[in-house]
Amino acid sequence: MNKRNIYLDNKPLAEAKAIWHQALTEVGFFSRRPQEQIAVDLCLGRILARPVSALRSSPSYNAAAMDGIAVHFLDLANASEGNPVRLGRDRFTPVNTGNAIPEGCNAVVMIEDVHYVSDDEVELILPATPWQHVRTIGEDIVATELILPEGHQVRPIDQGAMLATGVTKVWVQCPPRAIAIPTGSELIQPGQIGQPGQIIEFNSRILAGYLNDWGAAARRGTPVPDDPDRLREAIMAAVADNDIVVLNAGASAGTRDYTSQVLSEIGRVVVHGVAIKPGKPVILAMVGEVPVIGLPGYPVSAVLTMRLFLRDMIAAFLGRDRLDSPVIEATLSRPFHSKMGVDEFVRVTLGRVGDNLMATPVGKGAGAVMSLVRADGLLTIGAGKEGIGAGEKVAIELLRPQAEVDATLVCIGSHDNIIDLLANQLHTQRPLIRISSAHVGSMGGIMAIRRGEAHLAGSHLLDESTGEYNIPYIRRFLADVPLQLINLCYREQGLLVAKGNPKNIQGFADIAEHGHLFINRQGGAGTRLLTDKCLADLKIGRERIQGYQREEYTHMSVAAAIASGSADAGMGIRAAAVALGLDFVPVAEERYDLIIPKKFLGDEKIVRVLELIRTDRAFQERILALGGYGLRDCGKVMFEQS
Amino acid sequence: MNKRNIYLDNKPLAEAKAIWHQALTEVGFFSRRPQEQIAVDLCLGRILARPVSALRSSPSYNAAAMDGIAVHFLDLANASEGNPVRLGRDRFTPVNTGNAIPEGCNAVVMIEDVHYVSDDEVELILPATPWQHVRTIGEDIVATELILPEGHQVRPIDQGAMLATGVTKVWVQCPPRAIAIPTGSELIQPGQIGQPGQIIEFNSRILAGYLNDWGAAARRGTPVPDDPDRLREAIMAAVADNDIVVLNAGASAGTRDYTSQVLSEIGRVVVHGVAIKPGKPVILAMVGEVPVIGLPGYPVSAVLTMRLFLRDMIAAFLGRDRLDSPVIEATLSRPFHSKMGVDEFVRVTLGRVGDNLMATPVGKGAGAVMSLVRADGLLTIGAGKEGIGAGEKVAIELLRPQAEVDATLVCIGSHDNIIDLLANQLHTQRPLIRISSAHVGSMGGIMAIRRGEAHLAGSHLLDESTGEYNIPYIRRFLADVPLQLINLCYREQGLLVAKGNPKNIQGFADIAEHGHLFINRQGGAGTRLLTDKCLADLKIGRERIQGYQREEYTHMSVAAAIASGSADAGMGIRAAAVALGLDFVPVAEERYDLIIPKKFLGDEKIVRVLELIRTDRAFQERILALGGYGLRDCGKVMFEQS
Repeated sequence: MNKRNIYLDNKPLAEAKAIWHQALTEVGFFSRRPQEQIAVDLCLGRILARPVSALRSSPSYNAAAMDGIAVHFLDLANASEGNPVRLGRDRFTPVNTGNAIPEGCNAVVMIEDVHYVSDDEVELILPATPWQHVRTIGEDIVATELILPEGHQVRPIDQGAMLATGVTKVWVQCPPRAIAIPTGSELIQPGQIGQPGQIIEFNSRILAGYLNDWGAAARRGTPVPDDPDRLREAIMAAVADNDIVVLNAGASAGTRDYTSQVLSEIGRVVVHGVAIKPGKPVILAMVGEVPVIGLPGYPVSAVLTMRLFLRDMIAAFLGRDRLDSPVIEATLSRPFHSKMGVDEFVRVTLGRVGDNLMATPVGKGAGAVMSLVRADGLLTIGAGKEGIGAGEKVAIELLRPQAEVDATLVCIGSHDNIIDLLANQLHTQRPLIRISSAHVGSMGGIMAIRRGEAHLAGSHLLDESTGEYNIPYIRRFLADVPLQLINLCYREQGLLVAKGNPKNIQGFADIAEHGHLFINRQGGAGTRLLTDKCLADLKIGRERIQGYQREEYTHMSVAAAIASGSADAGMGIRAAAVALGLDFVPVAEERYDLIIPKKFLGDEKIVRVLELIRTDRAFQERILALGGYGLRDCGKVMFEQS
Repeated sequence: MNKRNIYLDNKPLAEAKAIWHQALTEVGFFSRRPQEQIAVDLCLGRILARPVSALRSSPSYNAAAMDGIAVHFLDLANASEGNPVRLGRDRFTPVNTGNAIPEGCNAVVMIEDVHYVSDDEVELILPATPWQHVRTIGEDIVATELILPEGHQVRPIDQGAMLATGVTKVWVQCPPRAIAIPTGSELIQPGQIGQPGQIIEFNSRILAGYLNDWGAAARRGTPVPDDPDRLREAIMAAVADNDIVVLNAGASAGTRDYTSQVLSEIGRVVVHGVAIKPGKPVILAMVGEVPVIGLPGYPVSAVLTMRLFLRDMIAAFLGRDRLDSPVIEATLSRPFHSKMGVDEFVRVTLGRVGDNLMATPVGKGAGAVMSLVRADGLLTIGAGKEGIGAGEKVAIELLRPQAEVDATLVCIGSHDNIIDLLANQLHTQRPLIRISSAHVGSMGGIMAIRRGEAHLAGSHLLDESTGEYNIPYIRRFLADVPLQLINLCYREQGLLVAKGNPKNIQGFADIAEHGHLFINRQGGAGTRLLTDKCLADLKIGRERIQGYQREEYTHMSVAAAIASGSADAGMGIRAAAVALGLDFVPVAEERYDLIIPKKFLGDEKIVRVLELIRTDRAFQERILALGGYGLRDCGKVMFEQS
């Protein structure tokens, strides 16, 4: 199997790009510039392939610029208060704005300055200058003058200008025809229920979507199974009527093989393997004169790799400048280590907390499509760096409008399902408020508050000695931070077990005794502390709990593991059990509070949150429906320090 | 006719907006929120009407995260260099990334760490931790968790996330159905040749285009003539199946009347007349529960008014925040006077000259659609201000991407048709370079250079005493500016006269003697100086030249006036005569130079310009084809000062 890697190169990104650009130039990819002539009515958003000049002048006739009367300016040469001039019907013509100036007239007098002696006679007391209040022919633009240059993207106003000057057809660039072909025998279509090992085919939708965003005319191809012959046929058919062919390898190693192997048979593999993360196995090939790009199977790798190699290609094909996303400066909230010699692309969430725009890395690997959904921006760590330290300033390529980022409430700390409800509720209000929540446990939240990286932190830390929640930890770690501790809820913690509790697990004693498989929460999580407290109370050694060392970061992940049978029991909140239809063995009721620095209490986002939990009955109903929650102190200030 | 103005109010903008918002609220416009359920494959760019949660976990099975073998971690508990563990075919299963972890296995060992003793036996020297290199069920997202909140606009990656978690249908907001109905008997369709007084109907295209840009589903209605009954029918039909109806009054006063009159008969006119410029006569009305907006007839007024009242309406209808265009700070290049009590919207061109981003007002009134085509931004002058002085900092709402603005070469001064050629040529190169050229005459250009507002200025100022071009003026007005004076061309100046020269005009003598109608250029224009020199040489008094006081700003405008018969002769370059097929009576050959401050000689935009005129033969051919040009010194440095 290792044979696979033999021809998997590891070219530096810059070099790979240069080689690829060279290859594209050689086949004339950038100079093709197909163009078509279409009606101006249909050219909105298209790129002009030729300059557009006015066919007729605008205005095309001398037009009244005011409502009033048209006259010959010489008739009023001596008009004045003392010497009013009277004109008969033969020397003036009533005109409305836009009317043509009659033959023999060369000025307009505003209606306000006209005194009608009778319907047929007017009296005027002001002299006129030639062509006053007249929009003369070509005042806006003269026939033959340039309206729009080649390469311009047509806006609605441009359509108007062209039509106004008699232009009804224009030559525009044709977008590159692109196709995204998914490959892999494990693929099934959305809606189908997959067997283990089968994967829903959604990548081609993502890829075609972005290709179209960037200006291509992209379609999705039919999935191709892991079969060299079928793949060969598919590629040959695709290159026949496309300008760009994108292959998306299935996740299986097999597919990756076939793709490069087949491409080197029917064409030329220009680059296979680039020193980037994610996206290393990308294949850049040429079949005939058509570029064929083989993207990695993981959605995140596929999208990021495509951004690197296809966005500029499409722009250049259309004769446009590369489309860069806006870049802003942010502060990295936690250190991020990166491999030397590799350009790494890190998905980050962004949040403006006080004066600092904080960037926090998200995502547990290229398989996690949600990490890209949640990402607000991209951080590039150059091949020359081993990583970036916390607090360092970094340049972030925005994946969302800045406005959305600025409207983000940063919530770091313990996870609770209510946060999801909150996130949705706030996002339906106006102005929209987004919640970016990082689940790093209660202690992680307290530290984030201390570093000024979060607007609020969810915490349920029990102090064993006093039996008090959160306050002792605040005294210890946030002594100098003016803040309020506001209760969100009380919630039932307990053991999540399979539906019907088949192994009849009633507590940790059973788990230890019968060697049931446990699944734990990460260190620093309030739920982890609760677990350890129970074990301590029961005098059960950790080593006796099988799976103690297996850690998950959220209640839902623990629940998922149990639902899937990969664990027998785990500590979590009742809401998680309810959500996935598990059984629940109550262990304790605990208090879950929100830690909010005073300086943010005035922030509209925080105001909305407190409003919601304190006054919105419907919202509280929804919380209770989740199961296991008590709201008797919801919104109450449990502790305050200044 | 004055009756018309009786019910034309003049409400302050803020008040008008408040009243309108109130009226819309009363009819429940903002709370309608029609929604429809569509396939995820079709929801790109749509706004979610309901939150989307995962139907299935992702991954939906425990999947290998690496190529290698699946094992049970306990089998390797004691594995080490010194104690290699051998596993038979029954204790391991080869897996590729993405494969399902077989029953009984709970860890993956990377292929790199696997030593195949035989096809059926492997040797391992490292212990394994439970679930290492396994993407466990729900690692990315767990069933029932929130994927996307209500109000979110769907991106390709979101489609992927939904499909990945088993979501195939989604509820989305329906865009407001809008229709743009042009009115006015003077309207003709694009392509038709109009009689004087007739206007090509292009406004409805512009309006529908912007309505769609802002998120509506907009169509164009059939033009309605100036007839109250027809108008009434059209409106009633439109309100029956639209959420927003936009009427675009023809330019004629008549139409404006009918619209408000008819609207007050069949509905309620909420506001008629707002203290804004342009756009005062806007009508905001309600017919039944459907908002009907009557926009002024001039395209620029129509577009700007629509931005003020319709953009936010559409966003709110969709439950989105208002879409503001980015705003940047710029320096106003020349004073702009504005009427107290009126919110004025000024179209400006923008250009980054050295360190200052200069904003220059453009446009000769609301009729000038080109002024909006050329505009890079909008300057709002509040009702409380009488105007803004030159050099003042102003906030500009961008109408173009900042990148395009930064790529703009600012060219202020004398007009020459070669500038058009240059503009197009540069815009076809990459990176795109735009030229924003203001035709203010040679002296105007010199002053712009002095104020640091232009990268280059075109000048052809003849010093009568020395007979020398430009240099004496530079010595006088730009003495302290290090610059180069680079020749662009020599060009023939002369009298433009009608085709065939019917009045047999051979010079100013004829014009003075037979009282032919002359058309002049503005003061400060090199061509104006030339005219005055000719008259002086011939000892002809200005008062003897009929039309001497009528001024135009470009050669093409002068040519247009003569082509249309509104003047018999005017001074201009041969290229203008050639462009419009006029006769040309040569008067002199003059030199046309470019004044370029040295600090800009390194600017890529300038470098490109000089490259083009100095080395591009094809480009020079195109210049010569314009007629009347000599390029013997093209690109040559005529004068230099540091």
